[in-house]
Amino acid sequence: MSGSVTARDAAAGGPTRDGAAGTAPVPHAAWLPPEAFRALGARRVLVHGDGPLVDTVFDEVVRACAGHGGWAGRTGVGAGSGSSADGPSAGGPSAGGSSAGCPVDLVLAVRGADPLPSAVPAGATATPVGDAGPLGDEGFLCSRVDGVTVVLADAPAGLLYGLFHLVRAGEAAFTGDRPTRAHRPTLRRRMLDHWDNVAVHPGSGQVERGYAGGSIFWRDGGPRGDRDRLRAYGRLLASTGVNAISVNNVNVGVTEARLLTDRLDDVAEIADLLRPYGVRVHLSVTFAAPVVLGGLPTADPLDDEVRQWWHDTTRRVFARIPDFGGYVVKADSEGQPGPFTYGRDHADGANLLAAALAPHGGVVHWRAFVYDHRQDWRDRRTDRARAAYDHFAPLDGRFADNVVLQVKFGPVDFQPREPVSPVIAAMPATRLAVELQVTQEYTGQQWHACYLAPWWREVLGFRPWGPPERTVADVLADVPGPQPRRGGDLVAVANVGDDPFWCGHPLAQANLYAFGRLAWDPCLDPVAILDEWIDLTFPASTVGDPDLVRATLHAVLDDSWRTYERYTAPLGVGFMVNPAGHYGPSVDGYEYSRWGTYHFADRDGVGVDRTRATGTGFTGQYPPPWSQVYESPERCPDELLLFFHHVPYSHVLHNGSTVIQHIYDTHFAGVEEVVAMRERWARLAGMIDRAVHDRVAERLDEQLRCATEWRDQVNTYFFRKSGVPDARGRRIH
Amino acid sequence: MSGSVTARDAAAGGPTRDGAAGTAPVPHAAWLPPEAFRALGARRVLVHGDGPLVDTVFDEVVRACAGHGGWAGRTGVGAGSGSSADGPSAGGPSAGGSSAGCPVDLVLAVRGADPLPSAVPAGATATPVGDAGPLGDEGFLCSRVDGVTVVLADAPAGLLYGLFHLVRAGEAAFTGDRPTRAHRPTLRRRMLDHWDNVAVHPGSGQVERGYAGGSIFWRDGGPRGDRDRLRAYGRLLASTGVNAISVNNVNVGVTEARLLTDRLDDVAEIADLLRPYGVRVHLSVTFAAPVVLGGLPTADPLDDEVRQWWHDTTRRVFARIPDFGGYVVKADSEGQPGPFTYGRDHADGANLLAAALAPHGGVVHWRAFVYDHRQDWRDRRTDRARAAYDHFAPLDGRFADNVVLQVKFGPVDFQPREPVSPVIAAMPATRLAVELQVTQEYTGQQWHACYLAPWWREVLGFRPWGPPERTVADVLADVPGPQPRRGGDLVAVANVGDDPFWCGHPLAQANLYAFGRLAWDPCLDPVAILDEWIDLTFPASTVGDPDLVRATLHAVLDDSWRTYERYTAPLGVGFMVNPAGHYGPSVDGYEYSRWGTYHFADRDGVGVDRTRATGTGFTGQYPPPWSQVYESPERCPDELLLFFHHVPYSHVLHNGSTVIQHIYDTHFAGVEEVVAMRERWARLAGMIDRAVHDRVAERLDEQLRCATEWRDQVNTYFFRKSGVPDARGRRIH
Repeated sequence: MSGSVTARDAAAGGPTRDGAAGTAPVPHAAWLPPEAFRALGARRVLVHGDGPLVDTVFDEVVRACAGHGGWAGRTGVGAGSGSSADGPSAGGPSAGGSSAGCPVDLVLAVRGADPLPSAVPAGATATPVGDAGPLGDEGFLCSRVDGVTVVLADAPAGLLYGLFHLVRAGEAAFTGDRPTRAHRPTLRRRMLDHWDNVAVHPGSGQVERGYAGGSIFWRDGGPRGDRDRLRAYGRLLASTGVNAISVNNVNVGVTEARLLTDRLDDVAEIADLLRPYGVRVHLSVTFAAPVVLGGLPTADPLDDEVRQWWHDTTRRVFARIPDFGGYVVKADSEGQPGPFTYGRDHADGANLLAAALAPHGGVVHWRAFVYDHRQDWRDRRTDRARAAYDHFAPLDGRFADNVVLQVKFGPVDFQPREPVSPVIAAMPATRLAVELQVTQEYTGQQWHACYLAPWWREVLGFRPWGPPERTVADVLADVPGPQPRRGGDLVAVANVGDDPFWCGHPLAQANLYAFGRLAWDPCLDPVAILDEWIDLTFPASTVGDPDLVRATLHAVLDDSWRTYERYTAPLGVGFMVNPAGHYGPSVDGYEYSRWGTYHFADRDGVGVDRTRATGTGFTGQYPPPWSQVYESPERCPDELLLFFHHVPYSHVLHNGSTVIQHIYDTHFAGVEEVVAMRERWARLAGMIDRAVHDRVAERLDEQLRCATEWRDQVNTYFFRKSGVPDARGRRIH
Repeated sequence: MSGSVTARDAAAGGPTRDGAAGTAPVPHAAWLPPEAFRALGARRVLVHGDGPLVDTVFDEVVRACAGHGGWAGRTGVGAGSGSSADGPSAGGPSAGGSSAGCPVDLVLAVRGADPLPSAVPAGATATPVGDAGPLGDEGFLCSRVDGVTVVLADAPAGLLYGLFHLVRAGEAAFTGDRPTRAHRPTLRRRMLDHWDNVAVHPGSGQVERGYAGGSIFWRDGGPRGDRDRLRAYGRLLASTGVNAISVNNVNVGVTEARLLTDRLDDVAEIADLLRPYGVRVHLSVTFAAPVVLGGLPTADPLDDEVRQWWHDTTRRVFARIPDFGGYVVKADSEGQPGPFTYGRDHADGANLLAAALAPHGGVVHWRAFVYDHRQDWRDRRTDRARAAYDHFAPLDGRFADNVVLQVKFGPVDFQPREPVSPVIAAMPATRLAVELQVTQEYTGQQWHACYLAPWWREVLGFRPWGPPERTVADVLADVPGPQPRRGGDLVAVANVGDDPFWCGHPLAQANLYAFGRLAWDPCLDPVAILDEWIDLTFPASTVGDPDLVRATLHAVLDDSWRTYERYTAPLGVGFMVNPAGHYGPSVDGYEYSRWGTYHFADRDGVGVDRTRATGTGFTGQYPPPWSQVYESPERCPDELLLFFHHVPYSHVLHNGSTVIQHIYDTHFAGVEEVVAMRERWARLAGMIDRAVHDRVAERLDEQLRCATEWRDQVNTYFFRKSGVPDARGRRIH
């Protein structure tokens, strides 16, 4: 069977399923404006395959062709297809388009029981050189043979990712011949955690650590109901490779707890909207659910009734949402309930939920963010950085196969600079997820331009056992052991809201994009990812001076994370932020608090002694060589010096500067860099979409104000403490 | 006409108007438990006079006699009496009580057109020695002649205050003979400002700076409706001499603005409930009311329509509440609208409202709390302490006669230690109110026992022109000028809420009591006031060991303000509190903020240079001798040293200690004093009401925790900065 729809057909009333036909304000197209589909949409495209994800691929192709003059045809739609009734082809006969029968430029095909369309050149099915492994559900082959570009997948999700691969490639996908190359994700699950509350929380609002307006899912205690926005979000996620989200805050309130039971329909609706984009839905649940929702007297993980409650409840979830992803749990952390209440450990707790999920193929993401949040600042022996390792490393090997232990990338809390968590090297028999923050809680809250991919790349490329041993990404990808298996996940806290630009700051979209891309392939170069994002978001044909636009975006973003690092807390010491909200400086804001985040600055020096010799012993949680490197103030990398050592202001860094002069220099430099960013951005006026330009300009003004505040407060603080004047005589207040 | 009601009559079903018959929880009796009325209630009492306030006096006497075996009779009730229908005598004939016709022990009489009852001995009407002045509406004469105690007043309010004078005196009022003495209030208006919001405010809650639960007036956007509670409150106020309150926050929200117009009935209800206790009701209004409520395009004070709007609106207020007190205004302050918006000054603004109020006898309390709340911490020339003087002193003489300029007692903001505001000496031709805080915003928020009367006494007794010139209280009492007049007010922000103990901390009731008493007579000794309060609140017959109870309460409270001062910010520097909420320490909490409250501590020294010679020049706002005394670091009183001077840590105080050692010593001492308070209080277990004991014990635990936190943070902060070890080798973290 075959069918085709011409561009004109579609333009005259074709599918608008993903369009902005709803009543809600049209959100910004982000990195998927119509122009980004020009190369693909100008071609003659044949889609081959069956099922809802192939429908999505075909819809995309149809829409692209409608906009850019190509045509789309489809084959391989079976009688039992899941294709929706309003789909454009639905397995019917040819729609009689004028191009039917012409040679094609592009075939996107799922290899299945049916033979491939004859349009696929023989060479396109060749085994890729040096890669005979299975493609899996999400991989695809790409080639260009005899003037035909071919994407082949073994499953519909692979075809979807192949489609967006072509979108990214643009005209290059249709130029010359290319040998067959296999593409598959390094990490099996690329996931965004939404810390969205259903009911507005008196402290954390509608979205905890949300800096882009309200939630796209929830408003004032119920579903937001903006189906178009959710479909658009699913499409953006699919285009980066993200395949899972959790839809509610890990701090689970009373209303949110009920998503698991009587509010399950609200979750199912989201799942229905995201399913066509290959995105599974997960839920954050409270460990106390058997008590709170089930009326049981206990939530003890070893209690039979508790186990049965989770079993029954989970069965009902999967009955309603067959492809439900699983549970996310923050237990025994910052006031959330957990197994400690019942004298059980976190393996008992996680395995309880894992057992309920296993029969259905679900997983539990169990967060390792467990520490004493009521610490006494006078107590210098307790070290929050030690907590995750101390709690979890002894449990290695005890977690069920469908438990994913979700570890924050650093030992403290999403700071702009921390060492990589020692937990990652310490749990060889445990499936791990590393948790990042796309939302810019500690990195400028989407008022500051701060492109985080270089930081994430550094984390993912860190080698816990030193070069040439495996990287963090390697550890996540492969879980060794008796039954080696591809393994862990990359997870991040999301940064979108109901803001027209999705992220508040239009340039923060680059972080969302880059997260998905790095999760797919942690070896990607952040600058190259940014180039992809620029090509898609600001297509050359839509801007005034493409070279200037590209150069400006690189100048503003490439090094912006390091700029942020320069004007904020120095040398890895972290947490000099306002306790109320975490925006802007407060050098002593956490110094006498219960949160375990101190810098110990006095008139002589600054930093936290975490050595084995004289400090908290945290350095001993690392394997060699880092256990030695971090232990030594001489060998420790400059950027982490104050994380590991308390040193005098006169301590000389590897860069030849003293600590105090480095503080002054970096803070002056950081602000100067923001001044330069702002000037460069101003020169783009009139060259790009005005709304985007204005919004970014507004945010750069605030970034400069805030960076200046950081500079002045940090410099003044350390000048008042140290009494050391700036060697260059600049003004310190 | 005469009438009488016996104790038994009343006990068998007498008046319960002020009783706890309502459905709301019965609040604590505070300083008016039934036992406090024993001496009076055991007597044969005759009340003479007419009108609602005399009804109140008679009701009190009847209730007291019902409880303690005396009897109450009444004469002088005219036919047109305002006596309430449910009153006990209502001018009818004798109720036939068994004591009718016996000689009386006490006469309370208003001198009017009618002849005094024959029971008044001739000597009781003698002119008091050395005091031939008029009693006024609120004064009274008190004497005891030939075994009869006599209180005479020229108006009902005086009789009410005379009654409570007798309650305070107890048995002493009925012992021996006493010559006639005149009593009258030093200040004409003794007022409490309630910073209560009608609608819960997202930032400041139901009561701004309220530490005793919800509002007694408002809940969730409307009247609270607890009429019994409001009557009980009026009674407590009357017993201390308070005669005015404002019923809503000076930060006027949208809902609260409408109290002036369509919500006026809610205000009238409060006025009706408090009127029998001689308490007038005032309203905080927004200067933008003509725009917000009246729909005018401007609130310009010189605009005719604006003047007409205020005129008409005020006329409607007095039509509804004939004894309405007037308006309270916070203008051009911390974001509130004001005359600056229209290029007018504060005399223009205040006189606008004064003109509308004058025909009805109302007054406007115009707050002098105007300063730049968006200051740059880098700017050391701007000095918030200067602001009130700089804004208002040039306007002296321009305010209408019914404007009361309401000046915070210190130049900054209700700190536990500040110099007295220089505005008080600078405006001889202006009627002034001094504003205190009974609510403990900066003095422990009713979790810390902190008896504030010694501090207020110090402020009221301060001599702005040096000894032997007039005190602050003298300045308030008498406004000189072409037409000298008795004048100003004492105002305080209230500390009550819907807490069962009224104030959260049962001992904070002593502050409410003392405020009224000092406003009546600023020369009273705070320790003597506390004795009165103890006698009333903990009558000897109701406690286990009266001497121990008294000694303990004195030990806990007498010096508690200075104890608080010792463990918090040192030497008058102020504002080392948590910016979020003002509870607990944060030494640098305000140091880099926009609020103008800095300490400038560095490794060498600390304090704010406010001298004319090298600082902000604030010392120049004082007349001699203070302009010289404060200017000199040698002559400046120790307790204000850091308010006026930036000095090295090695600076030697008058007490012989260095600044740094003084910081350590006072902080260790302050905590030790709290430890002692707590131990003493524990020994009262079983001797006083258990609920009171438990509540205070709970609060003392918290006070000790918090004081320890203050000690450790302040000492650690200054040790880290100065590097100077404690001379006594105590532990500093």
